[in-house]
Amino acid sequence: MAKEQKQEFVNFITPRSEDFSQWYTDVIKQTELCDYAPVRGCMIIRPYGYAIWERIQAEMDARFKETGAENVYFPMLIPESLLLKEAEHVEGFAPEVAWVTKGGTEELQERLAVRPTSETIFCSMYSKWVQTWRDLPMMYNQWCSVMRWEKATRPFLRTSEFLWQEGHTIHATAEEAEEETLKMLEVYREVAENILALPVYVGRKSDKEKFAGARATYSMEAMMQDGKALQAGTSHNFGTNFAEAFDIRYQSKEGKLEYVNETSWGVSTRLIGAIIMTHGDERGLRLPPKVAPIQAVILPIAAHKGGVMEACEKLFGDLKKAGFRVKLDDRDTVSPGFKFNDWELKGVPVRLEVGPRDLENGVVTVFRRDTLEKFTVPLEGITGKLGELLDDIQKTLYEQAKAFRDERTVKVENMEELGKAVENGFAKAMWCGDRACEDEIKEKFNASSRNMPFDQDAHRFGDKCVCCGKKAEKVMYFAKAY
Amino acid sequence: MAKEQKQEFVNFITPRSEDFSQWYTDVIKQTELCDYAPVRGCMIIRPYGYAIWERIQAEMDARFKETGAENVYFPMLIPESLLLKEAEHVEGFAPEVAWVTKGGTEELQERLAVRPTSETIFCSMYSKWVQTWRDLPMMYNQWCSVMRWEKATRPFLRTSEFLWQEGHTIHATAEEAEEETLKMLEVYREVAENILALPVYVGRKSDKEKFAGARATYSMEAMMQDGKALQAGTSHNFGTNFAEAFDIRYQSKEGKLEYVNETSWGVSTRLIGAIIMTHGDERGLRLPPKVAPIQAVILPIAAHKGGVMEACEKLFGDLKKAGFRVKLDDRDTVSPGFKFNDWELKGVPVRLEVGPRDLENGVVTVFRRDTLEKFTVPLEGITGKLGELLDDIQKTLYEQAKAFRDERTVKVENMEELGKAVENGFAKAMWCGDRACEDEIKEKFNASSRNMPFDQDAHRFGDKCVCCGKKAEKVMYFAKAY
Repeated sequence: MAKEQKQEFVNFITPRSEDFSQWYTDVIKQTELCDYAPVRGCMIIRPYGYAIWERIQAEMDARFKETGAENVYFPMLIPESLLLKEAEHVEGFAPEVAWVTKGGTEELQERLAVRPTSETIFCSMYSKWVQTWRDLPMMYNQWCSVMRWEKATRPFLRTSEFLWQEGHTIHATAEEAEEETLKMLEVYREVAENILALPVYVGRKSDKEKFAGARATYSMEAMMQDGKALQAGTSHNFGTNFAEAFDIRYQSKEGKLEYVNETSWGVSTRLIGAIIMTHGDERGLRLPPKVAPIQAVILPIAAHKGGVMEACEKLFGDLKKAGFRVKLDDRDTVSPGFKFNDWELKGVPVRLEVGPRDLENGVVTVFRRDTLEKFTVPLEGITGKLGELLDDIQKTLYEQAKAFRDERTVKVENMEELGKAVENGFAKAMWCGDRACEDEIKEKFNASSRNMPFDQDAHRFGDKCVCCGKKAEKVMYFAKAY
Repeated sequence: MAKEQKQEFVNFITPRSEDFSQWYTDVIKQTELCDYAPVRGCMIIRPYGYAIWERIQAEMDARFKETGAENVYFPMLIPESLLLKEAEHVEGFAPEVAWVTKGGTEELQERLAVRPTSETIFCSMYSKWVQTWRDLPMMYNQWCSVMRWEKATRPFLRTSEFLWQEGHTIHATAEEAEEETLKMLEVYREVAENILALPVYVGRKSDKEKFAGARATYSMEAMMQDGKALQAGTSHNFGTNFAEAFDIRYQSKEGKLEYVNETSWGVSTRLIGAIIMTHGDERGLRLPPKVAPIQAVILPIAAHKGGVMEACEKLFGDLKKAGFRVKLDDRDTVSPGFKFNDWELKGVPVRLEVGPRDLENGVVTVFRRDTLEKFTVPLEGITGKLGELLDDIQKTLYEQAKAFRDERTVKVENMEELGKAVENGFAKAMWCGDRACEDEIKEKFNASSRNMPFDQDAHRFGDKCVCCGKKAEKVMYFAKAY
């Protein structure tokens, strides 16, 4: 074996302050979260990225099941005739559908859509499965990929294929459907804020921005570090729109035939993009401990010195046994400096260094990725201390992001103020409710309405529309958005 | 609310002894494991079926990760030019590919295959990612769906789209690749036998039956109750076949450019079909406790009588807390008789009945789905007792299946015996290794070679080929197969 020259670390990340978009691209490539695929607009999610998705899935899935939702799997191909059944829906999706026209050597008589979303095929089965009120509610969810033939793509944010979950539920009454729609939005908010450390505004979308075929769409909206909003999850109430198109009726307790009320709700791998753009810094990723694939990395310093590797291995075993996601970086082909940079780039919340001097003093040297602080803690009791540290990092990341978001949220009273505010973040404005004003704001500032807070009374701060000056009762967040 | 007439149970299952194929179809429909989709050859996996798949996934996935494999996600669409790169591979798959030819309104310049399997697209990235020996091995797995445009389909056994996992690994040496191939087959065998209670023969496929592009394919083969074999999992060693086609080379420690050695391995929702056809009986499913979505169902008897519902709820809480997957069936719209039949149909391993007399005596009435025995056990200590019971049921199902399989495996010395044996199960035969003999056996008896046991010396029982009579050194299992 040839003698190894230890590799030195080179960080190729474009400064965030210089070019946020290039910074984002550099970070996802260099951290090996994903890579570009040899298929237009598609990406490959690599192990480090997929491990984050698995954490998000586990947290979401457990909560879905607590609400009584069950997982299923529906075919990825949807016959065109099904897609055509609900008029608004098809209008919304047809332009971005990928079509299968050939199976084996056979030309298909009816072309098949690679699912862009699955309302229609769920409906086709619900109409078969539902007979009476006893069969309701049906609350199904699937984890799968969907395909939307996008023109301009960006990894995790907008790709032709992406991973998501789509919940589709049917209920006896309008009230139950509305309750479900809001309940699932609350699940999303809770995971976003408590697990992903993403502060979000939850509220209702305007008619212009709602989902194709929905009566009401609710969303959660996060603020990225470049001042753009990111829609991070949506929940839709369809009322009886689809039930009427697909004839999904049930016999009520009173013996009458009634249409069901339907909802759908989804989050996607876009959440990974939100984590990167909310928490990342000049050194790379900063991952919230609850979603980090590796919560702490152990680095032996002067690993050849007596006792160092043994101590690292013992520490690794102890922390793993205590339930932490921990890694021992025992590579001998790179320098400690390389490792420092590598794990900072990858956003591991805590680095634990163990060297001969640490051992002499009965301590480990701790580095916090969130605050960049370095200090020692006693080796004895490290397990409890690490738990506290991770909790504190989780909290700190959330608070930093919330302070940033709050600072970037500005109440505006006229178009000039709105134009300025959306250069940096959210403009909170009174709005008359007319689409014409939304269109004008879009045209002038390339900003869109994001959502309206639920407790409008608590947020209202005037009665004139920010755009037309007419009577306005709605509080709306506007922003440039991904 | 109208006064309810309690529903009586009607079992529409065709007797298994009369028509096994119809029995299978009836069972999967009535237990609501799956349903036919409005897309040719596709199925919908309903909650009860999907919950079994989630159990299989959890067991498999944990073991994959223990071997160092990591999960990833690759695009579902594969450009035709990639698929064409490895000659044997494309020949094997091209006839059953579904093609995307249109994206949005645009005709694609190159058509895209909905992945039938992902060797080619993994290879296209491996050739980018691998530089030196330090990057090896790469051991990636993905859980996804694949599409094969099948002519004749059967739910779980052969559908145009199905769920599976596909592991794709690359290694520095031929030895490491062979070791990986066999290690993953052993993971499959262990889960099949210990979790799914499916006894399997593991061994090597003939050249005729190996995977398109593989140098060696290994499989596990299970025996269904109609005497047909089911290939339940495969692991392939590609050697450098794909590496040469895709130019995947690494710099060795000695500084030389070398081709990587590659493997792939997969199991699918077909395993659910194997569970049904191995363990099911006239009453419906019998699910092994380790994979059953519901391990025990609690039925209140005379639920209106004082204390019954309270006792059931307490029992439910205790069992759930102890980690069992348990359900309390408190429906008041169906009779207890309906419930008995319903849960027997669905194959729940243990039924716990709690009625006023049981409570008086401080017992619960237990029904074992595997042996159909009914007996009482003290309510005190039920948690420990249930654990023992489930272990015993798991063991009993495996032993019943193994006794059946062993009984249906017959050593044969000539074609007449082989023809008889494959009517009922496996024919174990000496084989010369020539494809001509495999073809003759296929033509005469519609039976195919399944696999060759690893320890050939231990199995060898003659030296003449069962078909041509020439010198034979190989022991091969032949069977009719799904």
